[in-house]
Amino acid sequence: MAAPIEFYFDFSSPFGYLAATRIAPLAAQYGRSVVWRPFLLGAVFKVTGSGPLPSLPLKGPYSKRDMPRSARFLGVPFNFPDPFPISTQAPARAIYWVEEHAPERIEGAVLALYRAYFVDGRDISSPETTADVLASLGLDRAQILAAVGEPALKERLRNETQNAIDRGVFGSPYVVVDGEPFWGHDRLDQIERWPKTGGF
Amino acid sequence: MAAPIEFYFDFSSPFGYLAATRIAPLAAQYGRSVVWRPFLLGAVFKVTGSGPLPSLPLKGPYSKRDMPRSARFLGVPFNFPDPFPISTQAPARAIYWVEEHAPERIEGAVLALYRAYFVDGRDISSPETTADVLASLGLDRAQILAAVGEPALKERLRNETQNAIDRGVFGSPYVVVDGEPFWGHDRLDQIERWPKTGGF
Repeated sequence: MAAPIEFYFDFSSPFGYLAATRIAPLAAQYGRSVVWRPFLLGAVFKVTGSGPLPSLPLKGPYSKRDMPRSARFLGVPFNFPDPFPISTQAPARAIYWVEEHAPERIEGAVLALYRAYFVDGRDISSPETTADVLASLGLDRAQILAAVGEPALKERLRNETQNAIDRGVFGSPYVVVDGEPFWGHDRLDQIERWPKTGGF
Repeated sequence: MAAPIEFYFDFSSPFGYLAATRIAPLAAQYGRSVVWRPFLLGAVFKVTGSGPLPSLPLKGPYSKRDMPRSARFLGVPFNFPDPFPISTQAPARAIYWVEEHAPERIEGAVLALYRAYFVDGRDISSPETTADVLASLGLDRAQILAAVGEPALKERLRNETQNAIDRGVFGSPYVVVDGEPFWGHDRLDQIERWPKTGGF
């Protein structure tokens, strides 16, 4: 069994969303699974001194045009959300809950949360909204809502975010294939060729 | 006759080099020419507060891996140069000389200078080296060497760099197709579809 593809992302990342819609089918072509690794991009920005793309001078106005255009290019539904960016502790912790309690539902859970924010404009920074979205998939709303406020999941997300930083993750999406790192939805074409040729 | 494709770039930009190898054939598919617009990325970094990719925390080590990998992915020869980055006044001014005196040679001149730096490791920040490279294409070495030190070309490059900033250019390559801006060699796939569909 080939190694899984590791997918690091923040739930407030438009390009994380775009790549998330593609990564599992891409991995499946090679009989690979995806390890979903939500982390807090805000903690990374403290290390890099960077900030959310739309807030940067010059790059900001461009990115507000590039993001929906890139979505249209890929044929993925996208509505620029307001508020943006949002805190993503709640959905990120909830995904680690899903990993522990219903691991076979994790891809569906990631995509449902991303769509709730980037298509339907729902503010998933709210633990209630995150729990509502996952309940619509048949997951246990009350358990999730309780768990995301408890110390165990808080510590899990802190540790995962630190692990990501220690590994050099500086943006979202950040994908690792057989030890090779790829940053950005615009490296999906390279990611797709990498396992086919054993690197290039 | 459809509008030309505007190609903004800095001669010290690895992704500018990669895109430069593709842009003219891409434009030709649509019966379009390329307007080559070298500018000084250093002046832009003063506005954006950014810096050369390889010098940034975390992004730096990644980019040193991503740049040659992206070149291999595209099948373009690439050797990471030393020194890097370099001042690019000399080659940028020389391209505006070519535009004025031998406009039909401009694509060849851009590619020859880029290859001299990113394939052969020649330091094109030197006016002598820039003039040598262009002389190898049959252009007038003495005239170019004199012109790049004169006020007219200095002012031309200053104006072109300011025009780029005023237009919102914040990186290299930056490509404008029918008024639509695209940043990065990784938007070549979008650039290729844009004129075909009249936008998307």
